Amino acid sequence: MGSNPEKRARFNFVSIALPLRSNALSFLYLFCNLSPMIDFDSLKSEKGLILAVVQDQLSREVLMCAYMNREALEKTVETGIAHFWSRSRQQLWRKGETSGHVQKVKEIRVDCDMDSLLLLVEQVGGACHMGYRSCFYRNLEGEVVGEKVFEPDEVYKP
Amino acid sequence: MGSNPEKRARFNFVSIALPLRSNALSFLYLFCNLSPMIDFDSLKSEKGLILAVVQDQLSREVLMCAYMNREALEKTVETGIAHFWSRSRQQLWRKGETSGHVQKVKEIRVDCDMDSLLLLVEQVGGACHMGYRSCFYRNLEGEVVGEKVFEPDEVYKP
Repeated sequence: MGSNPEKRARFNFVSIALPLRSNALSFLYLFCNLSPMIDFDSLKSEKGLILAVVQDQLSREVLMCAYMNREALEKTVETGIAHFWSRSRQQLWRKGETSGHVQKVKEIRVDCDMDSLLLLVEQVGGACHMGYRSCFYRNLEGEVVGEKVFEPDEVYKP
Repeated sequence: MGSNPEKRARFNFVSIALPLRSNALSFLYLFCNLSPMIDFDSLKSEKGLILAVVQDQLSREVLMCAYMNREALEKTVETGIAHFWSRSRQQLWRKGETSGHVQKVKEIRVDCDMDSLLLLVEQVGGACHMGYRSCFYRNLEGEVVGEKVFEPDEVYKP
């Protein structure tokens, strides 16, 4: 480590891997002219929303797609738990708030066009409200190919 | 099949669906009235477009996101090569038509809400026009974490 500011900043960053950022670190990144933090303003949102693909970090299964607004991205980064913007309910949505099936975010990637995010997560339970591990549980022939991990009736009680 | 035009059209569609599926299975599905083939009309498109996430079938890396219209999905199913609708150029786009970096589609999955597709592909070369294997080659700190597999200047010649 020594006194190299880049190494020091990077070490500090790694040492608090979750939550993903701290204001002090953003300050270090800015003033040491290191790789800049990409925030919501840097992204190409559409009507204030950006697409987020969610992938299981270990199994590499694509779990779901959803949208984030500024608040959802910031909450996700701050807490390390995936938050999205529900377009149907028009409200902030902490994934798993009803089912407990939260997504612990380990890394966020940005695509070349800056208009999509990829969240690498540890998925508790299943991502899909139908009880499957992944929302992509059927193929184009309508066959179920995904793994069912819970019974929706038991999890979403009236 | 008989003389029902809808059934005949569906059979024709299915009979050219290889390499994605087996004709024998399609036959069974059609005539035993099992899970139907999911086509563009079954999907919840938005302004005629549906989101497609592309994943490398072997490495499980998420390569890119793009949109498909009806023609793009049908061409993809017919040819086994990924086609999309380019929103910026407003035209059908055969992925890799310039670079040769085509995507051989092995399977297509549909999500629970019927509004997103997941394409499992064999990626020739790299998916990203910046030369990376995946378009998601940076993390939220702006660090390059993806693998560069070609030099764009050498591939996209004027």
